[in-house]
Amino acid sequence: MLTVDLNCDLGEGFGPYRLGEDEALMPYLSSVNIACGFHAGDPALMRQTVAAALAHGLAIGAHPGLPDRQGFGRRNMAISPQEAYDLVLYQVGALQAFVQAAGARLQHVKPHGALYNMAARDPGLARAIAQAVQDLDPRLKLYALAGGALLHEARALGLTGVSEVFVDRGYGADGQLLPRGTPGALLDSEAAAVAQLLSLVREQGVRTPDGHWVALEAQTVCLHGDGPHALSFTRSCAAALKQAGIGCRAPA
Amino acid sequence: MLTVDLNCDLGEGFGPYRLGEDEALMPYLSSVNIACGFHAGDPALMRQTVAAALAHGLAIGAHPGLPDRQGFGRRNMAISPQEAYDLVLYQVGALQAFVQAAGARLQHVKPHGALYNMAARDPGLARAIAQAVQDLDPRLKLYALAGGALLHEARALGLTGVSEVFVDRGYGADGQLLPRGTPGALLDSEAAAVAQLLSLVREQGVRTPDGHWVALEAQTVCLHGDGPHALSFTRSCAAALKQAGIGCRAPA
Amino acid sequence: MLTVDLNCDLGEGFGPYRLGEDEALMPYLSSVNIACGFHAGDPALMRQTVAAALAHGLAIGAHPGLPDRQGFGRRNMAISPQEAYDLVLYQVGALQAFVQAAGARLQHVKPHGALYNMAARDPGLARAIAQAVQDLDPRLKLYALAGGALLHEARALGLTGVSEVFVDRGYGADGQLLPRGTPGALLDSEAAAVAQLLSLVREQGVRTPDGHWVALEAQTVCLHGDGPHALSFTRSCAAALKQAGIGCRAPA
Amino acid sequence: MLTVDLNCDLGEGFGPYRLGEDEALMPYLSSVNIACGFHAGDPALMRQTVAAALAHGLAIGAHPGLPDRQGFGRRNMAISPQEAYDLVLYQVGALQAFVQAAGARLQHVKPHGALYNMAARDPGLARAIAQAVQDLDPRLKLYALAGGALLHEARALGLTGVSEVFVDRGYGADGQLLPRGTPGALLDSEAAAVAQLLSLVREQGVRTPDGHWVALEAQTVCLHGDGPHALSFTRSCAAALKQAGIGCRAPA
Repeated sequence: MLTVDLNCDLGEGFGPYRLGEDEALMPYLSSVNIACGFHAGDPALMRQTVAAALAHGLAIGAHPGLPDRQGFGRRNMAISPQEAYDLVLYQVGALQAFVQAAGARLQHVKPHGALYNMAARDPGLARAIAQAVQDLDPRLKLYALAGGALLHEARALGLTGVSEVFVDRGYGADGQLLPRGTPGALLDSEAAAVAQLLSLVREQGVRTPDGHWVALEAQTVCLHGDGPHALSFTRSCAAALKQAGIGCRAPA
Repeated sequence: MLTVDLNCDLGEGFGPYRLGEDEALMPYLSSVNIACGFHAGDPALMRQTVAAALAHGLAIGAHPGLPDRQGFGRRNMAISPQEAYDLVLYQVGALQAFVQAAGARLQHVKPHGALYNMAARDPGLARAIAQAVQDLDPRLKLYALAGGALLHEARALGLTGVSEVFVDRGYGADGQLLPRGTPGALLDSEAAAVAQLLSLVREQGVRTPDGHWVALEAQTVCLHGDGPHALSFTRSCAAALKQAGIGCRAPA
Repeated sequence: MLTVDLNCDLGEGFGPYRLGEDEALMPYLSSVNIACGFHAGDPALMRQTVAAALAHGLAIGAHPGLPDRQGFGRRNMAISPQEAYDLVLYQVGALQAFVQAAGARLQHVKPHGALYNMAARDPGLARAIAQAVQDLDPRLKLYALAGGALLHEARALGLTGVSEVFVDRGYGADGQLLPRGTPGALLDSEAAAVAQLLSLVREQGVRTPDGHWVALEAQTVCLHGDGPHALSFTRSCAAALKQAGIGCRAPA
Repeated sequence: MLTVDLNCDLGEGFGPYRLGEDEALMPYLSSVNIACGFHAGDPALMRQTVAAALAHGLAIGAHPGLPDRQGFGRRNMAISPQEAYDLVLYQVGALQAFVQAAGARLQHVKPHGALYNMAARDPGLARAIAQAVQDLDPRLKLYALAGGALLHEARALGLTGVSEVFVDRGYGADGQLLPRGTPGALLDSEAAAVAQLLSLVREQGVRTPDGHWVALEAQTVCLHGDGPHALSFTRSCAAALKQAGIGCRAPA
């Protein structure tokens, strides 16, 4: 049976604040990336989100971000590879403690926002992040952008790199996500996104807005947990996979 | 051979700032408590301090504090037991990651400042902190004030509670530290402190300023790493122990 | 014409997060207290909230809190009067800059959460807070709990203290708010709260749950801006005042 | 009489930490830039530094930085002009409150670290920062890198831009500071720096390492307050100016 992993970034509230309907989304996912307190998340929410994810049988990942809570980790910062190593190790360790205390095991790490994007482009940052994960526990998987530097460096170090794709974003002929603002950067309908999901999972590739076929290694699919339509869109994706006979399962 | 553990709180700088001469102190200690980023410390300094401590063969402990960097974790905050549980687990996990990545193992946990004092008096906070440590790893030891609630709760849960004493502070007839400002609260000479150290280790007790004998379980001795005389005082303590034929060794 | 001030704490989001429907509430208020970045709020939100409040013709106040964003400024902290002075001055100055840059003038200061409650009980903290406000600008008004220490100290220093009452909370015979958890601490219906509002404004007092009459100086009424019913409740209060021929107006 | 302004960044400690010997430096300066709590500084230290500066008769400036305390505001962050506007206004307002409460008036604003450098190169950021200063108080001066975008935008808006030069850094033929790591980027002796100081003040220019003459508008000279030789170097600069008959005075 063909399977794919559906992942979502959760636990991205803070203190009195919440983002998204975390628990409502969980039945449709196979893995979650839980914010670790730098760009979002706090110790209480980390504990609660870990408990909920385990109750739903999901694979748990740490979702470390830049130390920029006001900017939600979305503003690029000029950090050195050593700084990237340190902040990833710190945050993954913190989340790992909640998973360990709950009697379970952390499955993966997926950097957040600007850190994710910077690591996809910058081999030095990518190698430092992969090294931090490997130094902590070489059994941890690393979720990273399909075709990006982080995926490459993770595999070069011997980690299991899990190639991530997006279903609501358009790709260019070079396999890169089209920059926001470019025509076709955001898919304009749920139907188009669901079609891209099926193409990615079954064909391991997509057609670009201008008609080229681009191959993409689609091991895990990122679904967005916030926004007004997140829950209904997630349900549609899960339903489409089921109808197509495709299983939803975390990476082995 | 009689032995005692000499511990010190280190890694309490932050960003561009440093407190104390951490590396110069290490040769005289047997264990260190490393700040975890809430009251002091940051990921870079945690990594560096772990590396230095391992190079000196010291037992490593996590030193979690209240989320109050400006107040250095010294201002009491009205936190719930659940909040104490969460912030201890978070911080210990973060430090554990650096220890684990360095190929070593975390030995103990010692709360910092106001959290330490609150946990010595409040059984509900004490139990929550001890539970966090046990849930993470029941092999972790918990350093706690001699005679205090945290020591009691740690042992009640089956953890190894390590009873901590102070050599530069006076004790009352009830075995409690005399409040700062009280006559005798601070020992007024290095000689008096060294004498108290030897009394604590050999006799497991001290004489109070008004002449009573009070028994104190002295398994680990806290030395302060900051202040202008920290290094020379630490050297004097280590020399006095050596001359008295007492070994300096982390708890077994 | 009898008038009263209706105030609400707004701008209490942070970064990507929002609390309450700030702009929807504004038409029903006469003054707002805007979070200043310690317990909630950030520079962008402060600017936006100031602009919206000015567009609605509201009197603007600074709403400084404890440096505890995760706890939303609701956890008591053991701060000294000097620390209270400093953190109030800092935050009020920051908000004042946004008001000044918008060509307007700050009208008042109202401490938030635990700082508000601590200042109502502790004359030393109260005096320090009032002094900070006076040192910055003696024309600033200080909103403070009816009958509390902060109101007293503000007036003792010559500031205009504005006495604040609550319409959804029960009062004891001593004029103090009944502690949460006590029977009658929270009024159980919108009708009861509206009745208390009218009693406070017209009679300057309320009847306690056990039937005593207690006099309360009601110059400004605090309405809560968060919670699912905040907007409808605020509308009801405004409508009740209008029907009773009572004006809604900031303190002169 | 020829005069020049000597400025220094002070109040850059935080909580229990201090950087540099602030008070010892003050007798040799004419103006200070005080950290405002984002990259360094806290409310207590801001109050103390303002008081000390006033006691020494110094002109006081606000020294706002990026929200990156661990990185000391030295790591570039991708902030928008609007974000720059907001964070400058917030921080300048906070410092202004301490100056105002001390009965004095804020004289100038000088951005810190990465914000200073980014604003020297990016006209959009520069304009936003200058606009924030002007919106708050058009009498405020803006200290900015000689020849940079911030100086240009400040003057274009009608603010008094004060052109800043460095005496321990080499300049290239284009009037730009030589990048660190380049030969000649750091002057290698106190004598060379003092000579550059005199050349800048008297000739309004310097000779580059490769022998070109470059004109530089030298209205204020930045002296560094940290580092082991800061105090002795500052004394040497002040002595050299005195001997040359040059006054040390804040901009009129």
